[in-house]
Amino acid sequence: MTRNIKLTIAYNGTNFGGWQIQPNKISIQETIQDGLKKILKIDSIIVNASGRTDAGVHAEEQVANFIIENNSIPLEAFVKGLNSILPNDISIKSSEEVDLDFHSRKSAKRKWYQYIIYTDIVRSPFIDPFAWHINRPLNIDNMQKAANYLLGFHDFASFAASKNSSKTTTRTIFKAQFSTLENRVFFDIEGNGFLMKMVRNIIGTLVEVGLNRKSPEDIKSILESRNRSYAGATAPPQGLFLKKVYY
Amino acid sequence: MTRNIKLTIAYNGTNFGGWQIQPNKISIQETIQDGLKKILKIDSIIVNASGRTDAGVHAEEQVANFIIENNSIPLEAFVKGLNSILPNDISIKSSEEVDLDFHSRKSAKRKWYQYIIYTDIVRSPFIDPFAWHINRPLNIDNMQKAANYLLGFHDFASFAASKNSSKTTTRTIFKAQFSTLENRVFFDIEGNGFLMKMVRNIIGTLVEVGLNRKSPEDIKSILESRNRSYAGATAPPQGLFLKKVYY
Repeated sequence: MTRNIKLTIAYNGTNFGGWQIQPNKISIQETIQDGLKKILKIDSIIVNASGRTDAGVHAEEQVANFIIENNSIPLEAFVKGLNSILPNDISIKSSEEVDLDFHSRKSAKRKWYQYIIYTDIVRSPFIDPFAWHINRPLNIDNMQKAANYLLGFHDFASFAASKNSSKTTTRTIFKAQFSTLENRVFFDIEGNGFLMKMVRNIIGTLVEVGLNRKSPEDIKSILESRNRSYAGATAPPQGLFLKKVYY
Repeated sequence: MTRNIKLTIAYNGTNFGGWQIQPNKISIQETIQDGLKKILKIDSIIVNASGRTDAGVHAEEQVANFIIENNSIPLEAFVKGLNSILPNDISIKSSEEVDLDFHSRKSAKRKWYQYIIYTDIVRSPFIDPFAWHINRPLNIDNMQKAANYLLGFHDFASFAASKNSSKTTTRTIFKAQFSTLENRVFFDIEGNGFLMKMVRNIIGTLVEVGLNRKSPEDIKSILESRNRSYAGATAPPQGLFLKKVYY
């Protein structure tokens, strides 16, 4: 019997070259595929994720799926079995049997990313692996005003990676919300999809607004320019979390 | 002029072989001494800490001091200057000029350690570097009852490392308190001093109480036995934080 297995996966991206298999770096995909090969006693398997997180980016609930012909292995083996083999920085949170037409990337309707910044004068070795340290206060009100221009359907070419390979650069953003807790700044963004490095390029630009180097209205002009060179630098990867994928 | 400089230091112990200089492993002491040599343009310096945290153990406020003859370097250079040289997993939180008779270890009156456990069924790659994962619930009430036997002046030989080098094994414990937040368990312990691996050996034993393998009263017998072999295994280092040193 052909089975389609959906996994929900958390990972600390610090020590990985990103989700996707690549030469010379350990990827999350390869690590999980190697684990599955051991459990299933097979030579090859492909695990597809909802998207390819970059090197250093984390996931609280990445979704991935794979097709197997094995009828005997129980679903729980993909949680307990894989977790016993995988390194501590990857954790399989759940496994589900899904319809054969489910595809973790193509079936995704909506994604939630969170970016974390902290603004202490001195960096913290405990927050540092999971946030971008900026040693000055940020004007969050202006950052929120700027973020509001991102809501809705837009061409996000200005915020795409230079080597962007997506067919179109238009996306719909449903939510772009800042919140704070003590010295931490959280940016929650939800959309029907994101271009390569899009969230980090948006954050890099919004931080320029927060440091009063750009005005909130500049974000509107940058969006309309469809020109990557007008936006800010790419924010570092360790502040970015893939929080949830909706189907 | 001879100056005595006191540093307050936070570090993520994950990638270090502990505080103390040792062959074949990068130590926090050596990393900070190397940084100071660059800043002060000198060939050698000794930085003494309040105690030697083990490999993998963290510190939120370790205290260390060193003597210099340099009269010109401003105190702030030991925060800004060192932080710009040190790796991200060490952070100098503050620097102070102190009396020449201040010694970070000998002058310490009291130390506060915290040990963190989390009891989710599935491990979390984000909590894992900073806590001990136990995939079953713990009987915290019994663990607290057991911990109460540690309060006061006792011979802690049962909880000392086998290669303990301290002159005496008696210490006074002022506080030994459990608290919880969702699936996290915090154990705060304060004493006038701690033997090598003492907190981790205590936690390893209290977890056996929490798993109902030992009774709270067993802790009293273990203490009185003054025999390491009666206590539990050493808890893993990544759950332990040196929180504060009092002078």
